Amino acid sequence: MTYCLAIKIRKGLVFASDSRTNAGMDYVTTYGKMHTFAWPGERFIAILTAGNLATTQAVLNRVQQDLEDGEADTDLRRVDHMFEVARYVGLISQSEQHQHAEVMKSANVQIEASFIVGGQIAGQPPEIYLVYPQGNYISASPETPYLQIGENKYGKPILDRVISADTSLEDAARCALVSLDSTANSNISVGPPFEVALYAADSLESPKRLKLEPSTPFYHELQTGWKEGLLRAFRGLPRFDWEKGSDPS
Amino acid sequence: MTYCLAIKIRKGLVFASDSRTNAGMDYVTTYGKMHTFAWPGERFIAILTAGNLATTQAVLNRVQQDLEDGEADTDLRRVDHMFEVARYVGLISQSEQHQHAEVMKSANVQIEASFIVGGQIAGQPPEIYLVYPQGNYISASPETPYLQIGENKYGKPILDRVISADTSLEDAARCALVSLDSTANSNISVGPPFEVALYAADSLESPKRLKLEPSTPFYHELQTGWKEGLLRAFRGLPRFDWEKGSDPS
Repeated sequence: MTYCLAIKIRKGLVFASDSRTNAGMDYVTTYGKMHTFAWPGERFIAILTAGNLATTQAVLNRVQQDLEDGEADTDLRRVDHMFEVARYVGLISQSEQHQHAEVMKSANVQIEASFIVGGQIAGQPPEIYLVYPQGNYISASPETPYLQIGENKYGKPILDRVISADTSLEDAARCALVSLDSTANSNISVGPPFEVALYAADSLESPKRLKLEPSTPFYHELQTGWKEGLLRAFRGLPRFDWEKGSDPS
Repeated sequence: MTYCLAIKIRKGLVFASDSRTNAGMDYVTTYGKMHTFAWPGERFIAILTAGNLATTQAVLNRVQQDLEDGEADTDLRRVDHMFEVARYVGLISQSEQHQHAEVMKSANVQIEASFIVGGQIAGQPPEIYLVYPQGNYISASPETPYLQIGENKYGKPILDRVISADTSLEDAARCALVSLDSTANSNISVGPPFEVALYAADSLESPKRLKLEPSTPFYHELQTGWKEGLLRAFRGLPRFDWEKGSDPS
């Protein structure tokens, strides 16, 4: 499995992903799932991937090839709007899945893939989109300022508590990392290294990007800090009525 | 959907459940999902339910009827071990599902149900079991001292952080309520009132039982306390390198 997310706040965009890939529980490997493209001053685009690894790699290969040979109807550099990136990725994903559908179905293998695409094109606001396995897509809204693909449930509560349009880029990135860490802690199919990218609105350049290995001191501090803070929050919860007489605090 | 859980610690057992039931998003109602049976000094048994409401009600009706007419091969009062309660509930569930399987399949309606059963029979340790829709069952272990049915992912991270065999009954109950509250906050199909029962090991009597409505002051304090504690924990997380110069703290 996989867990990737993107957050859209007034200050910009945050993208985050884990790196665990598995074909059954006996073949667990590490692959980056965050792919970024930047033409400074002109546009920045990120693509996060979840689902069948052959499908997501095929889609990224096509995206890269279309950029290089310029013969496709469109490519990441020629689209005029971010929603066109979502449509473009969705169409490629559909076509890649279609190509292998018969043989994969008979082998009972899931070839579905989903994507988060986001970024900014000069003159337009930053946007994020979730591209479903069927190729259709949705954008984030001010009320739901984040999108998730893969194992999205474990890490949702902390996003719901923390993220709003006014959250700072750094806080959004910390929250994304806590969301990833909580998921990895509860589900073995999601794991580090974690990647996180912070894109400042209107910068139109490559984002700040970090890769957090289990040995990265910052990751360790974040993990310990969160665990301790959570236990402190837990210890601060109100007592039941019958505890009150005997409670030393 | 539904979310129920049970926790087994050295001090005893905690059971907790939400009360939301829905047949599609346009028919959302409230039903208790926690059913307790106690014969003081002899045995205490709890049954939590998730899944198709007709199936779970049919199972509980059978359990009640078997107790009353004493004509079945066994019933809650005559079993000698807690695992037999799990087997008994699993068999009834299988038979109820089997009875309606054809017509429900043609109507494309899920009739599956899952259960948590737990309690203590005099002379034996307290136990909790998860009964799968297929009727088979598993018990909790010292390493995984809790069991969940229904929407189990949102509320798992906090259990993984807090619960161990040494947790107090009250802390386990608070943790179960936080787990329920986080789930309800992130998933509209899970909601209050929440019920929680605290069974002290070897008491062999009815547990302490609370029902928390949104208007219950304790629930409100817990909700606010948790939200504030979580945000405090979040604000205490380490800064990124580039923030350190400008950080007033």
